Amino acid sequence: MADKIQICIIGSGSWGSAIAMIVGANATKFDEIDDRVTMFVFEEIVNGKRLTDLINSTHENVKYLPGHQLPSNVVAIPDIVDAASTADILVFVVPSLYIKNFCASLLGKIKPTAVAISLIKEFDKAEDGGIDLISHIITRHLKIPCSVLMGANMVDEVAEGKFCETTIGCRDIKYGKVLKNIFQAENFRVSVVDDVDATEVCGALKHIVSCGAGFMDGMNYGDNSKAAVIRVGLMEMIRFVDTFYPGSKLGTFFESCGVADLITNCFVGKNRRLSEAFVRTGKPFSELEQEMLGGVTLPGPFTAGEVNHMLRNKNVEDKFPLFTAIHKICIGELKPSELLESLRSHSDDIYHPSQLIPL
Amino acid sequence: MADKIQICIIGSGSWGSAIAMIVGANATKFDEIDDRVTMFVFEEIVNGKRLTDLINSTHENVKYLPGHQLPSNVVAIPDIVDAASTADILVFVVPSLYIKNFCASLLGKIKPTAVAISLIKEFDKAEDGGIDLISHIITRHLKIPCSVLMGANMVDEVAEGKFCETTIGCRDIKYGKVLKNIFQAENFRVSVVDDVDATEVCGALKHIVSCGAGFMDGMNYGDNSKAAVIRVGLMEMIRFVDTFYPGSKLGTFFESCGVADLITNCFVGKNRRLSEAFVRTGKPFSELEQEMLGGVTLPGPFTAGEVNHMLRNKNVEDKFPLFTAIHKICIGELKPSELLESLRSHSDDIYHPSQLIPL
Repeated sequence: MADKIQICIIGSGSWGSAIAMIVGANATKFDEIDDRVTMFVFEEIVNGKRLTDLINSTHENVKYLPGHQLPSNVVAIPDIVDAASTADILVFVVPSLYIKNFCASLLGKIKPTAVAISLIKEFDKAEDGGIDLISHIITRHLKIPCSVLMGANMVDEVAEGKFCETTIGCRDIKYGKVLKNIFQAENFRVSVVDDVDATEVCGALKHIVSCGAGFMDGMNYGDNSKAAVIRVGLMEMIRFVDTFYPGSKLGTFFESCGVADLITNCFVGKNRRLSEAFVRTGKPFSELEQEMLGGVTLPGPFTAGEVNHMLRNKNVEDKFPLFTAIHKICIGELKPSELLESLRSHSDDIYHPSQLIPL
Repeated sequence: MADKIQICIIGSGSWGSAIAMIVGANATKFDEIDDRVTMFVFEEIVNGKRLTDLINSTHENVKYLPGHQLPSNVVAIPDIVDAASTADILVFVVPSLYIKNFCASLLGKIKPTAVAISLIKEFDKAEDGGIDLISHIITRHLKIPCSVLMGANMVDEVAEGKFCETTIGCRDIKYGKVLKNIFQAENFRVSVVDDVDATEVCGALKHIVSCGAGFMDGMNYGDNSKAAVIRVGLMEMIRFVDTFYPGSKLGTFFESCGVADLITNCFVGKNRRLSEAFVRTGKPFSELEQEMLGGVTLPGPFTAGEVNHMLRNKNVEDKFPLFTAIHKICIGELKPSELLESLRSHSDDIYHPSQLIPL
């Protein structure tokens, strides 16, 4: 029993709960994995009861993923150290904002042999003026390797068991196989690549592009122009990885974490939806976040700001005209209609990455 | 006057008429281009009048692009030889079905120095059991070079002057510059590449993938699974070009003719729409074409059939599980739900082209 792999899911939002449905089911399938999967739940009171008690008695996350049954071997625990201290695999799926605090809570309290995997599709700002990848933060703080899982995985559809693909970025092939067993399901098809950084960067950068797609929708500029935003956005994603993450692979953009996640978000994501409303209503994002997301920060404008902070510091804003225009539209420095200028002024030549491993 | 470049548009459907709006306007802008643009119109009687007379008097193609004004320098001509005999640039935009007949009509009747450009996004079947590119047919029959223009260009939006990008594939840089002048407009952004075959192949293969996207919509399988179809479809498009058009360029897939046109068609094209109806109604495509397209052949199932004919003859069906499954669904040999199997059984590894010029 002690030798079995223990899994802890850190986070219990809608995505954390949906992935707990798959991980919980897989834990009972594989002999080498401990049936009991712990889930750290930030405690709150829902309908007069503690959320952890509700989850453990009803096996439903009534607040964040109502209507879906969690496997009964997924155990909600309100103390992060209690949940994680004996785990061999830590699945991080919390808002990026809290990642450093959670790492601080876990420091020295986890198994030194544990490994992490981040499902967080955002960046953090780095102190050197750039951006910081969540997987890097976890590794730096906890001194453990950190993989990532990213893909075209709209949460509701994953919870409903509809087919999708996803990408795990993992540097170590041995862990990669274990992680695949933990996450793969009949309708959740996992590909494992060793290109961790590009996998994670794709997951975050697509938020920016999908704001651009939403602006086009808001202006009724049509599907051709939206396709142009997606195409040019993909080009800038490749340029970004080529510039800042040399040695990454072009092939990663063809995985679910790349082109597929980008497409899905540009057509059905919340960045698209709020960006369309931004144009139609003229309200700032802060107001739309209150009205449409209950105060949750929209990742698109936030990521666009972080990336622009980096591009400005490195003096390469002009190499990323679309990312730059989207950021300036988000903060009100440019009119949405000026997004077209960034497409018209874009270089005619297809970008040829010089520091990526070719397909 | 005699030295000015004369343009003839062969075809007057909705796409031919929309492109005539741009080409006609450009003809009056450039000194080296003759103002008068001829348009071969297959004569028919509309509201008791000849369509050519209607176009030449009202400057509107009332049958195929109603509500949009053609420039008055675009002259409709019912005889293909009259329209094309003195032209330096022949713009082909007719159904692929008729291309050989039109070439036969033009043989020996055009300027030997003329060049062609095809806007036809379909294949023809070749006698050797493979497929034939329309640009190859034109070159073979008329002994003139043939470029292509392909991209995310939904016709209604082009006619409305909404922004889009497009790709011209042209082997000769000198012609490429002239073609760019003829087609580029403020809201019709042209990139010229020298990779003609891949540009054309992308334009036709996307029809197949967009049927797959429509099947997913018809089954309510959600946006994640649709993104998986698009991603795997893009992979098979690359594999197809790598296998049958060695020496093509990976970069072409990142142009508007590649990923952008693919995306647009998977979300808003008629292949998607009829494929969704195919699943929901259970009617064969032949019946849906009558009901929804007035009897016009849908390019998706048609192209899927042509490509499958080739894949079978070359014994490589198993290398293209998605294309093969889509074809078999179109002809009723597989159930739409079995499309998922082609995604599940797809190789985990990203395809690495061996005969393409890398990005």
